[in-house]
Amino acid sequence: MPSTLSPSPERVDIPLGDRSYPILIGGGLLEDAQTFADVPAAASALIVTNTTVAPLYARQLQDALAGRFRQVRVLSLPDGEAHKDWQTLNLIFDALLGHGADRKTVLFALGGGVVGDMTGFAAASYMRGVPFVQVPTTLLAQVDSSVGGKTAINHPLGKNMIGAFYQPRLVVCDLATLQTLPTRELSAGLAEIIKYGPIADMAFFDWIEANIDALVARDPAALAHAVRRSCEIKAEVVGQDERESGLRAILNFGHTFGHAIESGLGYGEWLHGEAVGCGMVMAAHLSQRLGGIDAAFVQRLTRLVQRAGLPVAGPDLGAERYLELMRIDKKSEAGEIRFVVIDTPGAAVMRAAPDAMVREVLAQCCTA
Amino acid sequence: MPSTLSPSPERVDIPLGDRSYPILIGGGLLEDAQTFADVPAAASALIVTNTTVAPLYARQLQDALAGRFRQVRVLSLPDGEAHKDWQTLNLIFDALLGHGADRKTVLFALGGGVVGDMTGFAAASYMRGVPFVQVPTTLLAQVDSSVGGKTAINHPLGKNMIGAFYQPRLVVCDLATLQTLPTRELSAGLAEIIKYGPIADMAFFDWIEANIDALVARDPAALAHAVRRSCEIKAEVVGQDERESGLRAILNFGHTFGHAIESGLGYGEWLHGEAVGCGMVMAAHLSQRLGGIDAAFVQRLTRLVQRAGLPVAGPDLGAERYLELMRIDKKSEAGEIRFVVIDTPGAAVMRAAPDAMVREVLAQCCTA
Repeated sequence: MPSTLSPSPERVDIPLGDRSYPILIGGGLLEDAQTFADVPAAASALIVTNTTVAPLYARQLQDALAGRFRQVRVLSLPDGEAHKDWQTLNLIFDALLGHGADRKTVLFALGGGVVGDMTGFAAASYMRGVPFVQVPTTLLAQVDSSVGGKTAINHPLGKNMIGAFYQPRLVVCDLATLQTLPTRELSAGLAEIIKYGPIADMAFFDWIEANIDALVARDPAALAHAVRRSCEIKAEVVGQDERESGLRAILNFGHTFGHAIESGLGYGEWLHGEAVGCGMVMAAHLSQRLGGIDAAFVQRLTRLVQRAGLPVAGPDLGAERYLELMRIDKKSEAGEIRFVVIDTPGAAVMRAAPDAMVREVLAQCCTA
Repeated sequence: MPSTLSPSPERVDIPLGDRSYPILIGGGLLEDAQTFADVPAAASALIVTNTTVAPLYARQLQDALAGRFRQVRVLSLPDGEAHKDWQTLNLIFDALLGHGADRKTVLFALGGGVVGDMTGFAAASYMRGVPFVQVPTTLLAQVDSSVGGKTAINHPLGKNMIGAFYQPRLVVCDLATLQTLPTRELSAGLAEIIKYGPIADMAFFDWIEANIDALVARDPAALAHAVRRSCEIKAEVVGQDERESGLRAILNFGHTFGHAIESGLGYGEWLHGEAVGCGMVMAAHLSQRLGGIDAAFVQRLTRLVQRAGLPVAGPDLGAERYLELMRIDKKSEAGEIRFVVIDTPGAAVMRAAPDAMVREVLAQCCTA
């Protein structure tokens, strides 16, 4: 796989002043010591990964880092969103303190979004902040959590409710890892890629439509372009609004419905990307009802989500449960649910919507 | 008590760019709605306090805030350093999520350092950051945790190991609260006030020596000056080094030995300020051995610590246990303990010291 890609990685720079960092995108990067040449040197590093990813890539990363750190330890967490909680986070602190890690110790997050979010929050909080590097091994993590500095764990009453804005020193998107990704996970990543079209870039949306089969078939060149362009768009938005006071919220297109699905079914039942894929279809219907887009565009988006292998009908949690779950979304203010809606294809805005209208959308989009 | 103070509070500004905030110092401030006139308005506020402070001041603060928030709830945590852990922190998240608190909700920390540290970390982490206000009710919290933005909880393997740098919007030092403070707690606060002399300002040290009896007797004018000057010195140091990469570490004079005492005896056995008072004496002896100060100054500092009602002899944990505990201090690097030592009265530096020398100091300063 790496042989079909250019030998020097593509690079997207995330400009955030003294918290700026690069994203490197290419095949075989995680086993190449050169990839980590600019990571701050320290006595020790801790690779945090999970039981699924560890046997595939932990050893390679450990070897690649051996020259820069006297000790490189690996901590393997239980896999899955259900473990994105304090108990599992505490395993990272236990490992760090158990090994006497100091505040120069570098954490490496090797895995998907769950590993990235937890490792990032651990890095933000351990001794009030140690450096960390993201090595996302899922498509979703490469295009979503690699930009923006959002880290978090879940609380029984809400997803990502406890966390920090904390930037990595480097993000390494090794496209070779996508070849071992389960099909469901690949589709879940495509949901976040598709998202960037309607909210920000219709030329990219056109490109995704034309290349969806190549993406589903894991064509390395198509994946490289999709990852790079997604990171660029996200970087542009985040650069204007690092702490999500306004514009950045548009990146949550599909997420208000999506989080309700995930939380309502129990974390881990649907993948985050699956819930977002379906949530985008629901949010598109809501956008249409609010006068933003026409039925044809809703259909176009629905078709693309479907071709990516994602669900387009929501689970029947009951409208009241959906509303209740969405009211505790972080974007809510004083109990009013605020949705990201498409104003015109390629541009999103935040809107409140009457409960009655949301109920209509749910009735239309959910299967009994 | 408030009547002996000027009606308009003294003010120390902490200049940290867009994270700047004022400290207000005066009598009766917490029950005055005017004190909170610049706090961001929101639907709800949560006062986090403890079971000791709640009956004394929670109601007054709640009334003072009633005009600015539709709902002002009070959460009373168990009192004491032993509860500065994840389980207790989680009570804050449970309360916030249980009441549907949004990301504009303002947290008020009403209590000592433990309440301040936990509430600050909860504010830093809840939805990745909500505004918070410190209302420190102990002398130690007024002169120490009110400046610097350090928030944290303890981990079984180390104190303040999990936390964030997060600035409050406002700090309110109500001197009237010091009148209800137990004597041990007052002395504990004096330890941190005394600290500012040897590390930064010998004129202030002279003033403390001349006024130690007035301070112990809780003279309001003396306390007002001590609190203001301590905050000013700390603000100067923190302003030059917000994230503790260098200079700021001098504020930890006495803390390396002190943390070992607290942790070795079990949190809560000695008060933090008591451990710091004794730790300063130990660090002074170490400074003398490293050639920084003479025996006369060590004696002068020891005498002042004693007059403040603080212990000057450490518990006999055994030298090996002390060394082991100090090696996991956050200032350690690659297993080498780094001490804050007095270079010359009024100026501190970071130094490593040979284990043998540290053992000599421990033998000299610890009672069997």
